[in-house]
Parts: sequence; structure tokens; C-alpha cells
Amino acid sequence: MTPSRVSRVDVTPVAFADPPLLNVVGVHQPWALRAIVEVRTDDGCLGLGETYADEAHLARLEAVARELAGHDPYDLAGLRRAVARVLATGDGGAGASFGGMLDVDSALDTVYSPFEVACLDIQGHQAGRPVSDLLGGAVRDRVPFSGYLFYKWDAHPGGQPDAWGEALTPEQLVAQARRMVEGWGFGSLKLEGGVFPPPEECAAVEALRAAFPDLPLRLDPNGAWTPETSIRVAERLSGIVEYLEDPTPGIEGMAQVSAATDLPLATNMCVIAFEHLRPAIAADAVQVVLSDHHLWGGLRRSALLAGITETFGLGLSMHSNSHLGVSLAAMVHLAAASENLSYACDTHYPWKTQDVIVAGTLEFVDGAVAVPSGPGLGVELDRDRLGELHEQYLSCGVRRREDTAYIRSFDPDFVPNTARW
Amino acid sequence: MTPSRVSRVDVTPVAFADPPLLNVVGVHQPWALRAIVEVRTDDGCLGLGETYADEAHLARLEAVARELAGHDPYDLAGLRRAVARVLATGDGGAGASFGGMLDVDSALDTVYSPFEVACLDIQGHQAGRPVSDLLGGAVRDRVPFSGYLFYKWDAHPGGQPDAWGEALTPEQLVAQARRMVEGWGFGSLKLEGGVFPPPEECAAVEALRAAFPDLPLRLDPNGAWTPETSIRVAERLSGIVEYLEDPTPGIEGMAQVSAATDLPLATNMCVIAFEHLRPAIAADAVQVVLSDHHLWGGLRRSALLAGITETFGLGLSMHSNSHLGVSLAAMVHLAAASENLSYACDTHYPWKTQDVIVAGTLEFVDGAVAVPSGPGLGVELDRDRLGELHEQYLSCGVRRREDTAYIRSFDPDFVPNTARW
Repeated sequence: MTPSRVSRVDVTPVAFADPPLLNVVGVHQPWALRAIVEVRTDDGCLGLGETYADEAHLARLEAVARELAGHDPYDLAGLRRAVARVLATGDGGAGASFGGMLDVDSALDTVYSPFEVACLDIQGHQAGRPVSDLLGGAVRDRVPFSGYLFYKWDAHPGGQPDAWGEALTPEQLVAQARRMVEGWGFGSLKLEGGVFPPPEECAAVEALRAAFPDLPLRLDPNGAWTPETSIRVAERLSGIVEYLEDPTPGIEGMAQVSAATDLPLATNMCVIAFEHLRPAIAADAVQVVLSDHHLWGGLRRSALLAGITETFGLGLSMHSNSHLGVSLAAMVHLAAASENLSYACDTHYPWKTQDVIVAGTLEFVDGAVAVPSGPGLGVELDRDRLGELHEQYLSCGVRRREDTAYIRSFDPDFVPNTARW
Repeated sequence: MTPSRVSRVDVTPVAFADPPLLNVVGVHQPWALRAIVEVRTDDGCLGLGETYADEAHLARLEAVARELAGHDPYDLAGLRRAVARVLATGDGGAGASFGGMLDVDSALDTVYSPFEVACLDIQGHQAGRPVSDLLGGAVRDRVPFSGYLFYKWDAHPGGQPDAWGEALTPEQLVAQARRMVEGWGFGSLKLEGGVFPPPEECAAVEALRAAFPDLPLRLDPNGAWTPETSIRVAERLSGIVEYLEDPTPGIEGMAQVSAATDLPLATNMCVIAFEHLRPAIAADAVQVVLSDHHLWGGLRRSALLAGITETFGLGLSMHSNSHLGVSLAAMVHLAAASENLSYACDTHYPWKTQDVIVAGTLEFVDGAVAVPSGPGLGVELDRDRLGELHEQYLSCGVRRREDTAYIRSFDPDFVPNTARW
């Protein structure tokens, strides 16, 4: 059997409408960007990946894409070396801006990720097995997600109100949560905080608890608080939230909070790369790590992260940025194969109204997505939708995620709330 | 495509002649035992595994084998659950005796391992890819091994002298090393110590250094020394050995030595399961971990171990017990796919004169074995040789590894040298 080789790689930036979701650094722009990676092999296989599409990141993806012809889709180690070689000729920056929320040192994992996912998709198609099988086999046939609640405006300034309406008060958040639970069946809820002073966000969480007495809750202020404030909030919300996510920035601050509370602390801000694990574990800074295959270098490295959290007695959850169906499929396969996934995964999926995959493949039933059992990722591109979202990218004018710059166009004095309270 | 299912599993115990190699707990018996696991699928694939064959371990392997019909060879998580279910009905012991050298808490990883390797062999055959590709791809096409030196008698008492001759003095060890280097081309040397008082073993290492000025050297007394002695030896051998392996037993003792020397400490005794990593890393007890897929639950979990050592800044080497060609093939694929393998692997392979695989598949050239590039493990059973070694198992009378009991049949007062000096 002659192994198949990569014959062509396409990187297509797309934009999809995104509601005005508020967070610690500002507000989501009207258009969220993603890049769809298509890797084709000379035996007719097509593998898919999805990642960020900030301009600098996109340039790196395209530079890698140009180097992959002839590559063996099983040679992931070689793929990683190829990505590293391409990046070595660049400016060394991280590429994706993450809206200013994350401080990513290296572009290697983020650029490698969509190509790795696409290669695994190809491997799965060639073997006739779902990607979860390539990660050791699914330990669950449905992956639970949590409903992701946001403070939000009723509309982008100057735009039409979206279907969700305004959410700036506890009552409005409860209404949003009700819509999430009724529409998708979520069995747990997460509130993106860091927008209002802690007492207001605590009151919102308490209102959610009153409205949904049985649902696990989480609060994620994205590092908006000092360690002292974090400790006070932990006392107030102890017994109400299942974990507090990134109450304060940095491993040192998190360790200070962790030492003062029994409430589990989760993170996708202070532990976002393998080099952060050692100091975070040594400091007992966090009890739960949120994995994210876009950030951690693809599915196999995220499976390694899962194994590390298991080995070191940490809980495992999953982070999400605004994403489309290719990412959702990859997240579902990874979560399905992660034995120690101890919490429902995050997803922004309900917030979007458009996608690039064939509709009806991935459905939320009772807050969970069934693990695709067909070959590869189990999703297919809808060429019309892909074309439409690419047209939107071309015309929308957004070229990078800039939550802070966008909010400042309405509120020039806005300063990110990081460690503000 | 209907996925293939396991149709039949065979576990064949074999025995092969083993020289009288001395170690901390006694001496190797005249016969070393291994079990060959064959997993067949309904589409005609055959996957191979190899493991220990101590009586209790063998019984567990056979109990698992009876449960695997209909199993999906891609469902490794399910395989592990099946092994756990079978073991739950047993006595909870660890099964393989390891000659009394290792204290293994659970049989799960050791029993799971050969079945996992066989399933990966099947996956590789079905995908037409080498097992190293299923582990992320080979990062090297040849895997370096170190020459494994032993103090030894010239013959088993009452038996014929073997080709190696006696090795009880530095001069005899140098001669043994010369034979190893000339015959196999090894580019590094390891001495199994713990047999004589430390000054004698240091003198042997110094003689090796004088005879082979350019070869990296290692000394492994298998925990024969106190921490104080270990520190003195580390001072003496600093700059002469690349690492000192298990000078003293236990994480606490190793940490005490580690704190007093810059010489890297390696282990395959105090870190032999995932639960040992956390305390060993917290105590900075070791700088190098020797992986062993037989002990750590197969190739994928050993790849996880490799990732953990990389993440936590530990070196990675590979341990060996007496083994045959199926194990060697699995070791080579694992090592090929372990990017951070920082030392040549150990192997007992030169010490055996018989094998179960088709001859000529795995050859040592310049101390390294070329990574098989064909499907699966890339080795095939020689049915005649398998039958012959099984006959030897049936007739040899050895049913478990008992280095101490065996040496006591000649030296009734022998006491293992653990922490003796």
C-alpha cells in the first residue's frame, strides 16, 4: 500500500454574525472570524480543521499550507516540525489576538492545531473510523456541554436587536439561561463575568441558583478581581458554583486564592500551554484545567493534557471561543475520548446563527452532542455556506478580534477590567 | 465498512535459556519466561503482544483473553475497562513477580499492556501503517540501545558455561563490554550493579571509562545503597556516568540523594506507575524516568508518560527485562515516536539465544534497530520457534521469576542487597 500524500491545502477565512457579548476586555465585534483548513490527499481524502482567523494567524496558516504538499498525513511529528520551520522565518508573535484576553507566547501550538485535526480527519476516513477512535476510543457516546451565559447588549450599536435581547441584570440573565436550557437542554450553566462589580455578578449567580436549583453553575470573571476580592467571592459562592474560573490573573494570584478556599479554581488563562503546568501544579494554583485543542496544539496534545490532569489529580473541563461546526466536531471527539473529563464542556455554539458544515450533523439534545460514529470528524462542508461566510469575511472589514478597540468606539474611556476589583 | 471484531485470542507461555546474570536480589534462573499474546480479528488480522509469564500473571492474561471475543480493536478504553472487570474478580495482586525487585500495586497496567499492543498491531495492519505512526509518527528511523552489562557466573551451577564467560571483576566486565560493543555496535553501556560493595562497582565503571573513553556509561545498583552511600558514589562517578539509576530505594531516599548531587538520577523502581509521578516530581527525586510499556500499560500510556516527562523537564530513557522480539518491536516503535527520548534504551536482547519471531527482522546495526516501516509492529511469529519455546516452557519447570529463591539453592544465606551498603 503506497501511503497517501497531501496534494492540496486550502485555508478559507470566514466571518459569521456574533452578538454583542460583553466580557472583561470589552465586547464581541459584530463579526467573529474563523479559518477553515482543508487538507486534501492524492487518494481523494479531505480532512478539515478550524481555527482563529486573525490576520497575522491567517498569514501563518497560509505560509504553512504552502509547505505541506507531499506530506504524509500520519506524520504528525513531521507536520509539527514543518510548522516550526515556517514560524521560524516569521516574527515570532503569537498570531491570534484572543481579544486581548490571553497572553500566548508561541504560535506553534495554535498554527499546528488545525492541520493536525485535518490530518486526523484524513486518518479516520482512511481507516473508516471516527477520530475519537484514533484518540483511544470514545468512553461516552454523548458529550455534555454547559450553557454559556453572557452579559450583553440588546444590539450592536446602530444594528438590529438580536433574538436574545439585553442581559445586564440578574433577571435578564435568568431569562437568557431559561432560553438556553429550554432550547438546548443544557444541564449546567456558566456565566462569563468580569463585566460588573463582583457583588452584582454574585447576585446574578444567586439568581441563577434560585431559578435553576439543580443545575451546576460556574462563574468566569476572566481575571477581573484581585486575589483578596476573589477570596471574598469564593466565600460567598461556596456551595453555589462548582468552580470559579480565573477569578484573578496569573499563577501566583490564583495560588493565593487557592490557598484560602476549598472552592475549586479553574483556568484557561494562567495555564494555557504545557510550560505552565509545572509551576501551576507546584503552586497548587488551580484544581481544574480547561483544555482547548485550538490553543494546546491539536487533539493528540490535548489528550496528553487530559492525561496530565488525570495523573496530577486535576479536574478537566473544556474552553471555547466563538466557533463553528468543524471545531465543535473536534471538541466532541476529544471530549468523548477523555476519560477524566469531569465537567461539561463550554461552547459558544448557541450564539451563532450561521455555520459552514452541512446542517443537522451535530445536534444538541439534552445539552449534549452525540459523538459522530462515521469516519473522521464526521462533518462535511456545505460549500454554499462556506462561500457565503467567506464573502462575509471579505466584506465585513473585521481582520482581527479587538473587543477593547470595538467597545472604545462607543465608550472611549473603557479600560479592561483585568484585576480591577 | 463494518468494523472488524476480535474473533480469537491465544496466550502462549514460552521459556528461553537465560544466562546466570547477577543482580541485587539474586541471579537469573536458567529459563526466562514470557507470554506471547495473539489477537485475531474476523477479517483475518493478527495482532501480537508480549509480556511477563509468571503463573499468576498468566492466569490473568488467560482470564482476559476469554472475555475479548467480539471486542473492537480500536476501543482501547473499552479494552481497559474489560481488563479491570476481569481483575476485579481476582485476588487483586500484581501478578508478575519482577524477581522481587519491583513493588507493583495493581495488575491493571501489566495485564492490559500486551492486549493493547496487539490491538495497535491490528490497527496498523488495517491502516497499512507502522505502529509508530499510530503514536504520532516516528521522529527517528533508528532507535539506539545501550549495551547492558551484568556481573555473571560462567555457568548456571551444574550447567555448561555460556558463550559470555564469567564476569565478576572489572577486567571481566570490560571484556564483556568489548564483546557487546564489537558484536552489536552499542554506543553506550549500562552496568547492572547492586551485586558487590560500591567501591568494587565504582572501580568497574572506572575500568569501563578507561577502556571506552567515548561511550556514555550508566550504573544501576537497583536500590542497593543507603542515601549516604549513594551521595558518596555520586561524587566519585560524577563526570563519569551520564546518570545513576536507582542508587537507593524509594522516592524519599532518592530525593535525599538528588538534593546532594548534580548527577542526574534515573529510576525504574521508585516511579513505575502514574501515581508515583506527582510525589516524585514534587520531591525532585529523579531527573530521568525509564519507561517500560509492559509496566506502564502499553504503548499509548507510555507515550503519555513521555509527554509528562517532557512537560515536567525530566529526561526519558527505557527499561528492559529479559524479552523476545515482539517486545523489542514494540519498544522500537514507542521509542521512535518519543520525541524527547534523551538516552539510548536498555535491552536484554543480546543475552538471549532464542526468539519467537521470524529471524532477521530486527537487527542491531551500530547499536541501533531500524524502525520497521511495514504495517503494525512489523514482526511475524515463527510458528516452529514459538512451538519450541512453548515446549521449553512446559518442560523447564520454572513457573515464576524467583531470582532470590534460585540463588539460595546455592547460597542459603543470601539476603537481597537492597539498601545493604
